[in-house]
Amino acid sequence: MPAGDFPYAPPAAAESDSEEGRIWSQIKKEAHQDADSEPALASYLYSTILSHSSLERSLSFHLGNKLCSSTLLSSLLYDLFLDSFSSDPVLWSATVADLRAAKLRDPACLSYSHCLLNYKGFLSCQAHRVAHKLWTQSRKTLALALQSRVSDVFGVDIHPAARIGKGILLDHATGIVIGETAVIGNNVSMLHHVTLGGTGNVGRDRHPKIGDGVLIGAGATILGNVKIGEGAKIGAGSVVLIDVPPRTTAVGNPARQVGGMERSAMHEEGFNGGDSFDEGSKLLRWWLEVVFALDDTGDDLISP
Amino acid sequence: MPAGDFPYAPPAAAESDSEEGRIWSQIKKEAHQDADSEPALASYLYSTILSHSSLERSLSFHLGNKLCSSTLLSSLLYDLFLDSFSSDPVLWSATVADLRAAKLRDPACLSYSHCLLNYKGFLSCQAHRVAHKLWTQSRKTLALALQSRVSDVFGVDIHPAARIGKGILLDHATGIVIGETAVIGNNVSMLHHVTLGGTGNVGRDRHPKIGDGVLIGAGATILGNVKIGEGAKIGAGSVVLIDVPPRTTAVGNPARQVGGMERSAMHEEGFNGGDSFDEGSKLLRWWLEVVFALDDTGDDLISP
Amino acid sequence: MPAGDFPYAPPAAAESDSEEGRIWSQIKKEAHQDADSEPALASYLYSTILSHSSLERSLSFHLGNKLCSSTLLSSLLYDLFLDSFSSDPVLWSATVADLRAAKLRDPACLSYSHCLLNYKGFLSCQAHRVAHKLWTQSRKTLALALQSRVSDVFGVDIHPAARIGKGILLDHATGIVIGETAVIGNNVSMLHHVTLGGTGNVGRDRHPKIGDGVLIGAGATILGNVKIGEGAKIGAGSVVLIDVPPRTTAVGNPARQVGGMERSAMHEEGFNGGDSFDEGSKLLRWWLEVVFALDDTGDDLISP
Amino acid sequence: MPAGDFPYAPPAAAESDSEEGRIWSQIKKEAHQDADSEPALASYLYSTILSHSSLERSLSFHLGNKLCSSTLLSSLLYDLFLDSFSSDPVLWSATVADLRAAKLRDPACLSYSHCLLNYKGFLSCQAHRVAHKLWTQSRKTLALALQSRVSDVFGVDIHPAARIGKGILLDHATGIVIGETAVIGNNVSMLHHVTLGGTGNVGRDRHPKIGDGVLIGAGATILGNVKIGEGAKIGAGSVVLIDVPPRTTAVGNPARQVGGMERSAMHEEGFNGGDSFDEGSKLLRWWLEVVFALDDTGDDLISP
Amino acid sequence: MPAGDFPYAPPAAAESDSEEGRIWSQIKKEAHQDADSEPALASYLYSTILSHSSLERSLSFHLGNKLCSSTLLSSLLYDLFLDSFSSDPVLWSATVADLRAAKLRDPACLSYSHCLLNYKGFLSCQAHRVAHKLWTQSRKTLALALQSRVSDVFGVDIHPAARIGKGILLDHATGIVIGETAVIGNNVSMLHHVTLGGTGNVGRDRHPKIGDGVLIGAGATILGNVKIGEGAKIGAGSVVLIDVPPRTTAVGNPARQVGGMERSAMHEEGFNGGDSFDEGSKLLRWWLEVVFALDDTGDDLISP
Amino acid sequence: MPAGDFPYAPPAAAESDSEEGRIWSQIKKEAHQDADSEPALASYLYSTILSHSSLERSLSFHLGNKLCSSTLLSSLLYDLFLDSFSSDPVLWSATVADLRAAKLRDPACLSYSHCLLNYKGFLSCQAHRVAHKLWTQSRKTLALALQSRVSDVFGVDIHPAARIGKGILLDHATGIVIGETAVIGNNVSMLHHVTLGGTGNVGRDRHPKIGDGVLIGAGATILGNVKIGEGAKIGAGSVVLIDVPPRTTAVGNPARQVGGMERSAMHEEGFNGGDSFDEGSKLLRWWLEVVFALDDTGDDLISP
Repeated sequence: MPAGDFPYAPPAAAESDSEEGRIWSQIKKEAHQDADSEPALASYLYSTILSHSSLERSLSFHLGNKLCSSTLLSSLLYDLFLDSFSSDPVLWSATVADLRAAKLRDPACLSYSHCLLNYKGFLSCQAHRVAHKLWTQSRKTLALALQSRVSDVFGVDIHPAARIGKGILLDHATGIVIGETAVIGNNVSMLHHVTLGGTGNVGRDRHPKIGDGVLIGAGATILGNVKIGEGAKIGAGSVVLIDVPPRTTAVGNPARQVGGMERSAMHEEGFNGGDSFDEGSKLLRWWLEVVFALDDTGDDLISP
Repeated sequence: MPAGDFPYAPPAAAESDSEEGRIWSQIKKEAHQDADSEPALASYLYSTILSHSSLERSLSFHLGNKLCSSTLLSSLLYDLFLDSFSSDPVLWSATVADLRAAKLRDPACLSYSHCLLNYKGFLSCQAHRVAHKLWTQSRKTLALALQSRVSDVFGVDIHPAARIGKGILLDHATGIVIGETAVIGNNVSMLHHVTLGGTGNVGRDRHPKIGDGVLIGAGATILGNVKIGEGAKIGAGSVVLIDVPPRTTAVGNPARQVGGMERSAMHEEGFNGGDSFDEGSKLLRWWLEVVFALDDTGDDLISP
Repeated sequence: MPAGDFPYAPPAAAESDSEEGRIWSQIKKEAHQDADSEPALASYLYSTILSHSSLERSLSFHLGNKLCSSTLLSSLLYDLFLDSFSSDPVLWSATVADLRAAKLRDPACLSYSHCLLNYKGFLSCQAHRVAHKLWTQSRKTLALALQSRVSDVFGVDIHPAARIGKGILLDHATGIVIGETAVIGNNVSMLHHVTLGGTGNVGRDRHPKIGDGVLIGAGATILGNVKIGEGAKIGAGSVVLIDVPPRTTAVGNPARQVGGMERSAMHEEGFNGGDSFDEGSKLLRWWLEVVFALDDTGDDLISP
Repeated sequence: MPAGDFPYAPPAAAESDSEEGRIWSQIKKEAHQDADSEPALASYLYSTILSHSSLERSLSFHLGNKLCSSTLLSSLLYDLFLDSFSSDPVLWSATVADLRAAKLRDPACLSYSHCLLNYKGFLSCQAHRVAHKLWTQSRKTLALALQSRVSDVFGVDIHPAARIGKGILLDHATGIVIGETAVIGNNVSMLHHVTLGGTGNVGRDRHPKIGDGVLIGAGATILGNVKIGEGAKIGAGSVVLIDVPPRTTAVGNPARQVGGMERSAMHEEGFNGGDSFDEGSKLLRWWLEVVFALDDTGDDLISP
Repeated sequence: MPAGDFPYAPPAAAESDSEEGRIWSQIKKEAHQDADSEPALASYLYSTILSHSSLERSLSFHLGNKLCSSTLLSSLLYDLFLDSFSSDPVLWSATVADLRAAKLRDPACLSYSHCLLNYKGFLSCQAHRVAHKLWTQSRKTLALALQSRVSDVFGVDIHPAARIGKGILLDHATGIVIGETAVIGNNVSMLHHVTLGGTGNVGRDRHPKIGDGVLIGAGATILGNVKIGEGAKIGAGSVVLIDVPPRTTAVGNPARQVGGMERSAMHEEGFNGGDSFDEGSKLLRWWLEVVFALDDTGDDLISP
Repeated sequence: MPAGDFPYAPPAAAESDSEEGRIWSQIKKEAHQDADSEPALASYLYSTILSHSSLERSLSFHLGNKLCSSTLLSSLLYDLFLDSFSSDPVLWSATVADLRAAKLRDPACLSYSHCLLNYKGFLSCQAHRVAHKLWTQSRKTLALALQSRVSDVFGVDIHPAARIGKGILLDHATGIVIGETAVIGNNVSMLHHVTLGGTGNVGRDRHPKIGDGVLIGAGATILGNVKIGEGAKIGAGSVVLIDVPPRTTAVGNPARQVGGMERSAMHEEGFNGGDSFDEGSKLLRWWLEVVFALDDTGDDLISP
């Protein structure tokens, strides 16, 4: 893959309004059912979802309440989020795509409303989208303040300059760190404790570039301006310091490639069988079982 | 160990009331002494401990205040916790056992009140016990809301469906992730950043089963429906993808077994010499020193 | 390096008042500019910085608001912090040195005010300095309560007994755990998810000793009473169980030393070219590229 | 009326459970309808009413949230109120009677839920009932703290020693002050700014005794150990320093009796035509119109 | 004045935008000056005024924060207020006129920003305008909840059905009570503790009608469907039960008319010499001094 | 009394330190006893009193928490109050005298701590003292913000320019309004709903001057630049528009003098038999009984 054509492009506002409308109707339906069956939670569901006239307002309210502090009031944040979500259809279509990605790709995601309310990865990512927009408008101080609140509240630290595609799933999410010049394509899944760190070239492009449909396992550390090719998989706990070709798998500390290319439709639109949390481990296990015959020879275990 | 008889059973309400009474008396005594010697903290100690008529109330109050938000009020949570603790003696005996486990097994735990007030691992685990109870009662929305609050506040993400025994120590706890079909036996200790993740078999039993008395070091990642046998030890930073036999130790990325079985009374009732934080590293060091003669031959270092 | 002369000493109150005065003036200047250009944030900037008459008050206010809870009121914490910062010039000079360290060594740190307001690593470290002071005054209950709040709010868990030098940079910081008998020298940088854990010798000196100018990469785990010599570097994701000589680099799980000693002026006073986030990865990459010729021979990948 | 048999008696627990059950059902029905028609308020209605299993819990929750402060937490107050309401059927029957009184006697009271949620007179009175109970149990400090909170939050200052009957309506309520030895019978209505003040005999019985069914207009001041007989009416703005016979009306500053006795069934059980806010003024107006022919002769206005 | 043509009409949106623009510019200028000269208050001024892009937003934010509670969140109220202020130019022009009225007619009102931030009378009145709008839209539950919050927070109790003109000054405001069918004209001033109460005709028009430019002194009580004619004055502490002709003065308990009609341009547009707080007392004093020669003949005092 | 020598002088710092020390010791003793006997309140007592090293700090903390809002943080107010109390011994001695006045003159005041914690009149007065100090320093915006908070929270509205002596008792206090040019001497007692209002002479001295030892009953309204002479008494509900000579009593609407001068040592230092709440009514009653033979002749009642 030539350096010049890394497959990142700003997400297009391709999600039709009807798609968002369908999801918002579904969210309200879910919340109504939950409120009926669980009165103790009805107040919460009404304040976060059912009292709002649109998904933008619901999400802005929820983020504002989650991220506010005694010195950054919820009303200010609510205004900021609502303004960004309402005025930037490209940003908003990415948010909707993220919601759908969680529902499609995470088997533990019971419903859209579950993701909207409870997924700190989803919420962190949307706050980042707004912080990134502020950053590109040279409103750096406010962007950094948002980053800081997200890091305090969710334990997710994404530099506002980082460019992130749409259809993103940050599963569990605690401890994710993404550096300033990182670029993440569309339909990427990453688990908790993933680091996309930099190299020591100050002021230059020094963080990883993650291609479309990449899957990064829990605790993986990817460092430097390396390219993780489209559809590649990074095993849990791996330390990746080199480029990983498309549709290959890299595992270990330091990580190495295992197996050849494979056809990976896994994260494409409409695919709903995957489990981001589990794919990495399944691949890693396959690696151990097939390549190193792990279960058969104990001796081989000495040289993984 | 046959798959059918994994040694997990619902914890029995075996802790005698007098045991709990003794601990509660001790907690109040500690809090009184602390309040006397540290007036700046007396208000905190009275509101969290000394103003309450029972340990259930004290813990419910403390959890309610820790986990409440602007949309999930503390009174609601207090009611929910108190109702669960008061009405389910089996659940409550597990809570008491966890308190004792922290005091017995963590050398940095100065007192019961220290654990009750300050240990986010202990508090996360008790909130999970209530969430799990709600989950088994099909109150899934509320259970997931609790899980989300624990993940926001403590950085500990335990799926409410996960089954957890008693006498559990989650030390430091930040970043722990435990999946939906995970099962954890009694007297298990695990450090921060431990992941018990799943495999890609959606809807099936896809997360680890942890036997009684297992010790899991910091940052260890255990993936898939693997069995970690009774009394086994998992080294810090290990990535475990295979079963680990009872009373053995597994280390490395990917993890391999080191040494044979050993008699491990370490986490049995009454044992107070262990240090969960340190046992993993001690074992790991022993592994390095004895098996690979780490300090002597640099060459061996190439193939850990 | 003889055991008796590990290069840790209590930080001296060497920072001249004029140095602090210069930084405080700069912080106020930055905040004024930010308030002018970003009215939405002006309230926040005035309440945290511009309304205060000194850096001690600004930091005490900010920490008090960040760490307060419904049972630990902000006024109490404000008083506690302000008293410590105002009455202990040695402690305060270390705080000022930390602020300068972030500005000098983290390329993502745009300004002193950015660090003061947004860096949870900086804020955690200052709260620890106060907790440590309380610990040495036998005010252990209050010290532990502070530790607990820092762990809840920032996900940084530093035992109040741990001794930490000055000019410290905890970058990103989420998930850092530092044990009771750990000692950290001056001008140390460590990334998120770093663990300085103990060994099972209860009541004895069982945690790592980190020399001056050491750099520890993201997710590194250092266990036991080992010495990391002055100017050493620990690669990201490494698990270190043995001493690491000064000015060397250790990487891997378990970690091994790579290359020989090198002249490392990197973290000395006045040096401003480094990037703590990136240095570890650069070194680690160099290790892979130079020593193991990673990109050339696939076979070598099997035995990293 | 002899001094010895002033018609105050502790309210009896005469309200049948079915009566309370009927009201609670009605409140929930109202709240459901309101939540459906006004989604913006649904969260509020669920948290205050619909999520609770009983009227006691709903009221305890609401009072706890209204009266809590940063130093008196809502959970503590919730517990305190719930315990009092649940354990004292006489107290609770008075609360239910007050609810019914507001609905029956105040034409502006649209519904039981309207009173429960919004009437500061009703809420102040219930908090007083609990404070009074504490006072009789010699828990004076807590009783006085409650009084103080009610005075801060609602502007209603009732000494916890004051004895108050059941079926009480405090309409609008702002500025009401009731002294230590005041006694108020059943089915009394009083408007805002009413003072039941004392005389200078320290330590003796020095505040007014208000008979059953008395109506006291806005801004009336009644001072000293005077008796306001059963069914009497006190005009708005009056200053009363003498006994007022049963079923008579007193108006003016200082107040004088106008007209003779009258049959007054107004506040008896089941009567629903009155308007406490208006009765005083109607009587007062009648006084002016009938006795002084107010509208006819302008000259008479000089000597009212 | 015939009963049929009481001079109340819905306020017209006559305030030109440029007038509001001028006031908003002035408010921001004042706030900037205050922020510069009083850093301790700058945060408050930025969050309430300077961070907002319009007067509507500033007022909505301020009211939302003042009136919110743990069960009625500030974001919800902010949305509600902003929607009303932005969508109803007639309502908004009345708000602007009130702001100007305070500045013109209250000598203690130093600036527009002083009124906007600190005058509970002004804030109560604006919250009432929104509650009234909700009432006319049959959103009665929400309207009553707003009324209740205003009564709790400001001690001002205005029934949402009451119709209020523009250019209103509620000075000091504590304890004001205004009933359901009250109607208040334009440019009315009333002091604290004023009651506009009803008569016992349930369901009918039973509260006072206050003409344009009326001035009502502190503690005055006006009861029943009486008409206070245009430009009339009601003395402090008066109890008014009869119609008061235009441009006359009524004082006393019960109130009587003093003197004849007078030309009163006092509250007309552009007049800035008045002092609502003082006018009533000045008139009352003149009444005493001139008509009854108060200081000369003690005997006359018996019959005020 | 000549206009030029109205007996107001700035209070002198005459209270000896030992007096304050004695009171502070007493307060702590009371709080300790209360905390022991009422665990539910111990947290409150520790946070407000027992955790503080001085009465200044305790009061500053308490006022800061009472008066803070989401836009005026408690830490800021705490700092402001503490700075004023600590740096101005004259102001502080007046505060101590107020505390003693409540204990001496209010029979319902059980203890110093009861007053310190619960008396909104006491707390309002101390906040005013600080606001007045700010006003005299030309920090008008902050002074007015404080006034506004006191009016919101306590319903007490004192213009920061008003000059108030020491040994002041504001009993019950709700609804008190004191104008800009009012002057209040030492050892004055006033009840709730008292107004010291102005006259229409804008910019001039237009509010009442209250002499030493004056007692003002509930709901009394005093308007204009009138002098209430030393030791005078104003009956409840009176409307006073003229000077009242020293040691006389004025009652009624409008108020007239009753009786001649009397020797009044009532509020002098050391006198502890009075009851401010009751004195006014006792006098008023005496007036009715003695002068008008109220109980004897019904006819006289017609012309009060």
